[in-house]
Amino acid sequence: MATIVQKFGGTSVGDAQRIMRCAKRIAETRAAGNDVVAVCSAMGDTTDDLISLAEAINSEPDRREMDSLMSTGEQVSCALMAMALHKLGVPAVSLTGGQVGVRTNDSHRRARIEAIDPSRMRAELARGRVPVVCGFQGTTPSGEITTLGRGGSDTTAVALAAALNVAADGGYCDIFTDVDGVYTADPRIVKNAAKLSKISYEEMLELAALGAGVMHARAVMFGEKYNVPIHVRHSQKPDTGTMIVREYQGMEDIVVVGAALKPDLGRVSLRRIPNNLGVQGVIFEKIASAGIMVDDIVQTEFGDMASISFTVDHADLADVKIAASHVLDQLGTGELAIEIGLAKVSAVGTGMKSHSGVASRMFRALGDAKVPIHNITTSEIKISCIVPKEHGQKALQTVHDAFNLELGDSVTKVAQRDVAKA
Amino acid sequence: MATIVQKFGGTSVGDAQRIMRCAKRIAETRAAGNDVVAVCSAMGDTTDDLISLAEAINSEPDRREMDSLMSTGEQVSCALMAMALHKLGVPAVSLTGGQVGVRTNDSHRRARIEAIDPSRMRAELARGRVPVVCGFQGTTPSGEITTLGRGGSDTTAVALAAALNVAADGGYCDIFTDVDGVYTADPRIVKNAAKLSKISYEEMLELAALGAGVMHARAVMFGEKYNVPIHVRHSQKPDTGTMIVREYQGMEDIVVVGAALKPDLGRVSLRRIPNNLGVQGVIFEKIASAGIMVDDIVQTEFGDMASISFTVDHADLADVKIAASHVLDQLGTGELAIEIGLAKVSAVGTGMKSHSGVASRMFRALGDAKVPIHNITTSEIKISCIVPKEHGQKALQTVHDAFNLELGDSVTKVAQRDVAKA
Repeated sequence: MATIVQKFGGTSVGDAQRIMRCAKRIAETRAAGNDVVAVCSAMGDTTDDLISLAEAINSEPDRREMDSLMSTGEQVSCALMAMALHKLGVPAVSLTGGQVGVRTNDSHRRARIEAIDPSRMRAELARGRVPVVCGFQGTTPSGEITTLGRGGSDTTAVALAAALNVAADGGYCDIFTDVDGVYTADPRIVKNAAKLSKISYEEMLELAALGAGVMHARAVMFGEKYNVPIHVRHSQKPDTGTMIVREYQGMEDIVVVGAALKPDLGRVSLRRIPNNLGVQGVIFEKIASAGIMVDDIVQTEFGDMASISFTVDHADLADVKIAASHVLDQLGTGELAIEIGLAKVSAVGTGMKSHSGVASRMFRALGDAKVPIHNITTSEIKISCIVPKEHGQKALQTVHDAFNLELGDSVTKVAQRDVAKA
Repeated sequence: MATIVQKFGGTSVGDAQRIMRCAKRIAETRAAGNDVVAVCSAMGDTTDDLISLAEAINSEPDRREMDSLMSTGEQVSCALMAMALHKLGVPAVSLTGGQVGVRTNDSHRRARIEAIDPSRMRAELARGRVPVVCGFQGTTPSGEITTLGRGGSDTTAVALAAALNVAADGGYCDIFTDVDGVYTADPRIVKNAAKLSKISYEEMLELAALGAGVMHARAVMFGEKYNVPIHVRHSQKPDTGTMIVREYQGMEDIVVVGAALKPDLGRVSLRRIPNNLGVQGVIFEKIASAGIMVDDIVQTEFGDMASISFTVDHADLADVKIAASHVLDQLGTGELAIEIGLAKVSAVGTGMKSHSGVASRMFRALGDAKVPIHNITTSEIKISCIVPKEHGQKALQTVHDAFNLELGDSVTKVAQRDVAKA
């Protein structure tokens, strides 16, 4: 008998009917002979509504009080889910983060899980009950309520699965969401994108960082660290989705598993700056303290001068301009250049490590499609090209076609290895 | 420096603006040199909304889950109240029933407070912060969330005041509500009803039992048991209200402190039943097991036969008819008579104990007003008359006038003592 943790997002539990449908899934999984632990997010727009309420009273609400306020959202959805299970004749008990033993540090609104005591869950499972656990929340050792911040409910689910060591008896963590699974590319842009049956944590993390919004990187990292298989699937469809695992059969043979697009970037260049020791530290400290997330960084040298470029989300350009000007003031030299209207297309795959020719294949395909490449960055399992924004969607489709990604998992030995060797 | 517990009901914290207004009251009380502990109910209709949500999923929701669901209402209002206080520069911290140390038994939806650990409140007060406590809720020793049922938030407030022993340094418990205080009669019916500045717990309990809905009897009983002065006052007006205390100056001189009306009763009579030992037990066991609240009971004897009458709320008549028929079947004899269209008018006052002539004065006044009296029941500090429903409001006004209640507290030595002796 396996133990399966099933996590339902805010849309999946958005109203009474949807909650009943999720409860039926839990009942079915249990009827198939598994132990189930459910994890729920807050219903639909509850969290946004609570934030609006708070802001009507205090535009800078205290973080601890926000946590106490927001944690009520999951408490409501979990109590309702337990009632829905009772209605189906399934014994169940809702548990807050504090009751289930999710202990966090005291960084309110972005707390980190420090420990999970599985004894209450085990006791409830032993009594034949489904623990219905509030995602996104925990308590500090002194009993203060905390929330985990973005991606918190997914992280709770994976962390509970880790604490219960579900993998030991063949269990895993179901993440029910509003997509069918992880695709070779965003199917809204690439019409022939294929659903992957499996993907590695590492690949998923790269794709998540590149804007593939299926799962938050934080939960995937937790899964990787504690070896929890994560099953991403649609909450309203019976089909299996995508299993995120450490490694899978033929993983090394799949050169490229997915492609991703970040559609709206700007590039900031600091040119003719002195290539001193530590100059990069000065620059990015300033940028970071302005709260700006920096994408790829490229540095080039000309004698004792250097030029540093980095990409940022288009929305951050105004802030970054101010911060970068301050940097140049501080350095006393250099030029600031800002380009807008850029996008980034990337190919990701563990198999890249062991196959040559992947980068050249990608560049050739983009060239054939007449997509200009402004910048190139690579990691062990990723190649990214900065391209003009207006070419973004075509570039994504081009990369997808170049590696026969429409074949999904079945691509393995057929097309890609040959492609990569070509 | 006194410690004052201030309780704000659901209407008082119904929206952001009202919460800010309550926060200002707390700030003012604190600025006047007092320590303040705030207690909040759930905002406006929150509790009803949550109950509807639950019933859409399960028409017989589990009591434990209902408690977990409903307790979120106060958690929201208290977090918002703390934010409102911060906005005014007042340090504050919201605390759930569990966090503040309200320990209850495990009777979900109608839990009894078993103990309150005041250490967290004292620690927060010592740090200069206002504890903003969730009313209506607590936790069992094993950490299960409970709610206290009807009148729960008032009870929480009085219980916290008792645990902090506020009376020792001149403190009390403010109950902010949507009325000015306790009146000599319902001012919607009796236009010249007067607000009382003081009333005893005992008198308040009698009035509450007679349908004067200002405060729930449970909180008053708690106040009486632990000697907590309770100040009932309007949440949106600065005026003082009514202080409920053990005894007050001149209490014995006020013969009648208030009058009350229960407007819609029916009377059930079981006639010609054998006056056996234990027959009353048989009857009222049956009635009670049907969940019917019985008002006054009158028994009369005729030889070895008896007749037992009791009044019930008009809404319960259909149920009581069935239960009473079963009783007669069981006894194998007797007749059932049901009268509808009755009301009960009562006069309450501690001073009654030591003054004669109160009953006769009341009866004479009702007679002069041509109000027929069907039944009379009395307690040490109360006289009640069952009258025809259509005479109810006139009867209330008549009793009010007969004891010069329009003079309120100032009636003491002037009018009533003479009246009573007359």
